[in-house]
Formats: sequence, C-alpha cells, structure tokens
Amino acid sequence: MGLVVQKYGGSSVADAEGIKRVAKRIVEAKKNGNQVVVVVSAMGDTTDELIDLAEQVSPMPAGREFDMLLTAGERISMALLAMAIKNLGHEAQSFTGSQAGVITDSVHNKARIIDVTPGRIRDSLDKGNIAIVAGFQGVSQDKKDITTLGRGGSDTTAVALAAALDAEVCEIYTDVDGVFTADPRVVKKAKKIDWISFEDMLELAASGSKVLLHRCVEYARRYNIPIHVRSSFSGLQGTWVSSEPIGDKKVEQAIISGVAHDTSEAKITVVGVPDKPGEAAAIFRTIADAEINIDMVVQNVSAASTGLTDISFTLPKTEGRKAIDALEKNRPGIGFDSLRYDDQIGKISLVGAGMKTNPGVTASFFEALSDAGVNIELISTSEIRISVVTRKDDVPEAVRAVHTAFGLDSDTDEAVVYGGTGR
Amino acid sequence: MGLVVQKYGGSSVADAEGIKRVAKRIVEAKKNGNQVVVVVSAMGDTTDELIDLAEQVSPMPAGREFDMLLTAGERISMALLAMAIKNLGHEAQSFTGSQAGVITDSVHNKARIIDVTPGRIRDSLDKGNIAIVAGFQGVSQDKKDITTLGRGGSDTTAVALAAALDAEVCEIYTDVDGVFTADPRVVKKAKKIDWISFEDMLELAASGSKVLLHRCVEYARRYNIPIHVRSSFSGLQGTWVSSEPIGDKKVEQAIISGVAHDTSEAKITVVGVPDKPGEAAAIFRTIADAEINIDMVVQNVSAASTGLTDISFTLPKTEGRKAIDALEKNRPGIGFDSLRYDDQIGKISLVGAGMKTNPGVTASFFEALSDAGVNIELISTSEIRISVVTRKDDVPEAVRAVHTAFGLDSDTDEAVVYGGTGR
Repeated sequence: MGLVVQKYGGSSVADAEGIKRVAKRIVEAKKNGNQVVVVVSAMGDTTDELIDLAEQVSPMPAGREFDMLLTAGERISMALLAMAIKNLGHEAQSFTGSQAGVITDSVHNKARIIDVTPGRIRDSLDKGNIAIVAGFQGVSQDKKDITTLGRGGSDTTAVALAAALDAEVCEIYTDVDGVFTADPRVVKKAKKIDWISFEDMLELAASGSKVLLHRCVEYARRYNIPIHVRSSFSGLQGTWVSSEPIGDKKVEQAIISGVAHDTSEAKITVVGVPDKPGEAAAIFRTIADAEINIDMVVQNVSAASTGLTDISFTLPKTEGRKAIDALEKNRPGIGFDSLRYDDQIGKISLVGAGMKTNPGVTASFFEALSDAGVNIELISTSEIRISVVTRKDDVPEAVRAVHTAFGLDSDTDEAVVYGGTGR
Repeated sequence: MGLVVQKYGGSSVADAEGIKRVAKRIVEAKKNGNQVVVVVSAMGDTTDELIDLAEQVSPMPAGREFDMLLTAGERISMALLAMAIKNLGHEAQSFTGSQAGVITDSVHNKARIIDVTPGRIRDSLDKGNIAIVAGFQGVSQDKKDITTLGRGGSDTTAVALAAALDAEVCEIYTDVDGVFTADPRVVKKAKKIDWISFEDMLELAASGSKVLLHRCVEYARRYNIPIHVRSSFSGLQGTWVSSEPIGDKKVEQAIISGVAHDTSEAKITVVGVPDKPGEAAAIFRTIADAEINIDMVVQNVSAASTGLTDISFTLPKTEGRKAIDALEKNRPGIGFDSLRYDDQIGKISLVGAGMKTNPGVTASFFEALSDAGVNIELISTSEIRISVVTRKDDVPEAVRAVHTAFGLDSDTDEAVVYGGTGR
C-alpha cells in the first residue's frame, strides 16, 4: 500500500461544490489502496477577505496576529473537506499545521519549515483515516506561536509532509493541467510537459513560471520527492517533476524545457558612477543592507572621456521604492550622478539542460528575438538558462517567437486554464 | 494592580468598527492600572455562515470537524482585536482556547471545561501584554482535539479564566445595559437590576432570561467570581451578579428580582394512562433514555369511572419530535390511549429570594394573572421561584401584568436594546 500526499489549492475548494468534488477525488485515491494525506489551502477568496479585515483595523498588522488571523482560512476548508469525505462514507480527520507537526522558525508571515514530526498523522493513517492537513501554516519551535509560510506555502507543506512520511509522490492539484512549455495565457500552442527534471523546474520557477514556486521544488529536490502537478478539474495525467522519469515512463529529456517570462521586475540604473574599484561593491552593499534581492546586473562600458559608467540591475517592483530610498540616502558615500527607475521591463528566459551540450541555442534565441523585432536591454545566463530583459510590451510577442523557434509549439491549441490561483 | 477578565460577544465585534470601539474600551481598562484578559466571540454572523457551509457539504457534520470549523470564527475576531489594540500603541497577544489552557472533556459541540491551566496567559500578562483569548473553545484532555463549549460558551470561558487567574471581576459585555427585571422587548418599563445574587440569577436563567446562561452563573457561583454584565455600547454601570453586594454598594436585596418568560418549550400530554403505580415512571424512563431533559410535570386527578388519568410535561420544542417518537415506540410497554403535542405554550416565572419570607407572593402572582384574564395550565414552584404555563399568545400581557403588580415598573421607559446576541 502506497502513501500519497495530495495538495489542493484555493481555487479547487472555492465553494461547497468544489469541496465535494475534491472529496470524491480523494476517496478515489483511498479506494485505489493508498494511504492518503491531503494538504488544503484556504477557500477561494478567504485569505483576501481576511487581509482586507486586517487592513480595516490596523494599517500595519503585527506578524504574530496576522498569522493567527490568516490560518483561520485553512481551518475552515480542512474541516469542511473532512466532513465532505465522511459524508461519502470514509473516515477523515483534519489537523492544523501545529497538530500535524509542522515546526517552523519564528519569522512570521514567511516562516521556514525546520522540522516535521507527523506522529498524529501517522496514527490517524494507521487507523484507516484520510488525514487532512492545513497548508501554509506551522508552529514556531521556540515560542509555540502559530506561523505562516508565505506565498506558495501550502505546496511547501505538502512536499515537507511527503518527505517526512516517505510518500511515493506529492500530487499538487491546481487549476491547470500541469507545467507548460510557456504560459498558456500568452502562448496558445504551449504544450503540457510530461516530465521535467528538478533542475529545469527550478530555473523555470526562478524565471517567472508560477505553477510551482522555487522553494517547494527546492525542498522536493533535496528529499528526492517526485511531484505530480495536475488539474483538480480534469482527470488527466499532469507533469511529473523528479530527478529521473518515473517508472515505465520512457521520457527523453528535452533539449529545451520551456520559455518563462516575468513582468514583475523593475530596472534601476545608477548613472555616472566613477569607474574605479569598489564602486559596484558600495552600490550592492547598500542594496543588500536594505534586505533587497536583486536579479540581473550589467555594467556599461566606461566612456573613456569622462571616466564614468552606468550600472543597471533588476529587482522586484515591490522593492523599487525601498531601493531608491536606500541609494539616495547613501549617495554621498557611493558617488553617482542620478538614478533612473524603469518598471516597464519584462524578462524572457529559455530553460533546458540540453543547452549545456547544444552550443547553438544562444544564437538561435537571439535570432528569434531579432526576427520578431524585439530589442534586448540586458542579458544573463546560467548553465541551463538564458534570460533577456526587453520592453514589457514586447514580452508576449517575444515569448511566442522563441517558443516557435525552438519547436515547442503544439499542433493544437491544447492548453486549458480553469480559474484563479491558490496559495 | 487588579486583574480583570472582559468578555465581548459577537454583536460587540460585528465589524471592523466594532472591533476598534472594543479595543479602545480594553485599552482604557489597561490604562486604569489593571491586568486585562479579554475573551472574545466570533464576529457577528460568522458562526451562522460557517454552519451554513457545513450543511452544504454534509447533512450530519461530524462533531470533531464541526468544532474545528466553528473555532475559526474566534480565531479571526481575536487576531483582529489584538491588531486593533496594538494599533492604539498597547501590546496584545491572542491565544486560542488550547493555548490559553482551556481543557475540556471530549464531548464535541458541547464540551465541559474540566481544567484551566493559563500559564501562557499569566506569562503574557506579566510581560505587560493584554491577553486576548478565543471564547467558546478548548482542547480535549485525552485526545488533544479541538472542542467547543456550546451555547453561551464564551461566557463560560470568561468565568473559568477569571476563576483560574483569581480575577477581581469578570465583565460580560453585551448589547444590553445589564440584567433587567423583565425582557425589555416585552416590558418597556423594565428596570435594570443593579445587583442580583447568584441564586436569583440562576433561577432567572433557568426560566428563560437570556442575558447570562445558567452554566456560566453556576460556574461563577462555585468559584465566587463576581460578574458584571454591562453594555459595550454605553459607558454605564450594568448589573453585578455576586454572592454579596460588592464594595461600598449598599444594595438591599429586592423581594422580587424579576419576571422571566420562555416560549421555547412545548407540552406533551399522555392521554389515558392507567392510574396505577409505575406508570409515570415508565413514561419518564422512556424520555430519559432518549436523553431529553424535561421541565415541568403535572398529573391530572384520575377520573374514578375509568381508572385512567392524563400526564402532561413540558420540554424544549427542539426535542419534541424525539420525545413523541420514543413514547410511540414504547406505547405497548407503557400503555396509554394517545399523545397530544402542543407548542403554543409559554412559561412565566417570578423569581426572588424574598419569596421565602413573604407568603403573600404566590397569591399576588395568581391574582395579577387572573386580573389580566390569563388562564393557567400548569404550575411549578421552587423556594425562590414560581412558574406557570399559559397560552403562548398570553405571555406578553401576563409578563407586563405581573411586572406591574410587584412594583417593578420603572418611572421611565429606560431599557435600551442595541443589537443581536453573541454566543
């Protein structure tokens, strides 16, 4: 008998009908002879409604209380899901993150899981129950306070439980049929990927693909837990993410896994920086001290006549204000002429382990962009990824051009998107 | 420095504005030099909405999961209240029933508190925090499952915490100014009671007064915790419930504390019962085995010609169906002609410790009802209470007549009712 961890996002349990549909699917997995652990997110818009309430009573809600508030969302969905399963004649018990043994650090709103002690889950399974666990939440090791894991936290809960329980697979149910070769909302001919390696999936997630978040894939890779991303609305096989293709699936590693894009970043250009040692260090020390993560960096060739250069870097738009403030404050120490802020940029990334052994990939990528009339502003590469920054308006066309150039287009418009996204 | 426990019902925290208003009141108590523990119910209609969701997924929700679901309500209100207090510049921490050490038995949906171990609350208070505790909920001693305390559970939480923390007073904030000599919605001239003994309050609660529930008063009496029932909307002094009048309040015990009424009961008459020993026992054993609590009982004088008699009793309407079914099922064993079910009855009760030493009370009570043209169907008395059953339609007029006859009328229409009721 195998042990399966299933995770359902908020859009899958948005209302009573959704909960009943999910309950049926869970019971099927149980009937197939599996022990089943289910991780569930808050219903549909619950989290947004709670955040809205918090903002009404306090402009800066305290982290501890904010976490206490938000975790009410999963408490509702998990109890309802357990009821719906019992109504189908099967035994189910719901568990909070704390009851399930999800132990975290004390960083509220974005806690990290540091241990999982699923004794109660194991007991419940051994008694023949289906165990329903609240996603997104845990309890802090030192203070025993309720914590939340931040964006994508329920996926991480599922993978962490799968690792602690030595599950055969962690199934992530969502509102799309799997991971696609590009965002299906942009590329109609995007294809569902049957299997992708952890490494390629990590690069896609880091480059803007939103189906799985980076930390969840990272966790799965560390403990070698196969993830199966699939739709809770259809019965189709989705995308397997694992170190090697699973079982009898003879899937050849594609040269290129997919094209990701990201329009959530902005570009800051520091203009008129003296071209001497230590200048770049001063800039990026300032940014790091403000606890801002940057993505891509480029330094222009210095103009010999002035001895000055420009340094550009990208960062999440949400951190833009903070970065500008930090740089302006340290302007005397750093020494630069001015700052330029540009939030009309987009990033297109091509990801694939085959890049390592196919030297023509980079050239083909630039040719495709050039043929589509897309101007490149910044370039960044890793062993299995190449990314460029362009004008934001050029992104859709650029993604489609690259997708076609690398032979990723499906013969049909197959991608289906069912609804919103969970957490 | 004193320790005060305050309890706020759902109508007091129905929306963000209500939460902010309550937060200000809590901060005032803190500024007055008190250590403050706050017990809070779920916001307004939250509980009803959650029950509605449960009914959509399952016609018979399991007790354990139902409790898990409902406790989400207090989790939301307590976290928001803590945020609102912090926003006023004071430190606050919220605690679930489990975190606050409210230990119960394992009877889901109506658990009983068996111990309170408020170590975390004490620590939080000692650090200068205001402690916010979820009402209505606890954790079971044996299984460590989340439980709820049933109707009026938040009041009981407050009194139990007050007892465990040796509080000076347990303040119950509600949507009326206190306990009145009659229901202000029926008797416009009802007066707020300044002080009432535990005993009289217990009788009023048992007779239909809804401001405080019986089990909460019973708990307070056992541990001798003074209760102060007051409005969260006005700043007025409310009603003190205690063994003796508090401090310098020289309040004379009234002969009559008040008039309560109850229209939630029904009457079952068992017709044609053989008038021989053991018959009544057979009937009430049947009812008891069905776990139904009955209230008043009367047996008619036997008709000598037939040797048959009728036995009537009252019980909550909600148990009516169950009682009829149980009696019909045991009809062969008991032996009776037929059953009559009447849910158009009402009960009027006069409560006051002075009754013991004022023999004229009963006579005056019946005279008042007679003068008002109200027919009496059943009578029941205790040392400090006399109750009658009448037609339901006669109840408002009967209550007003008795209230006037015993000199309880206020000179003005003072009673104010602000809103719904909490739990």
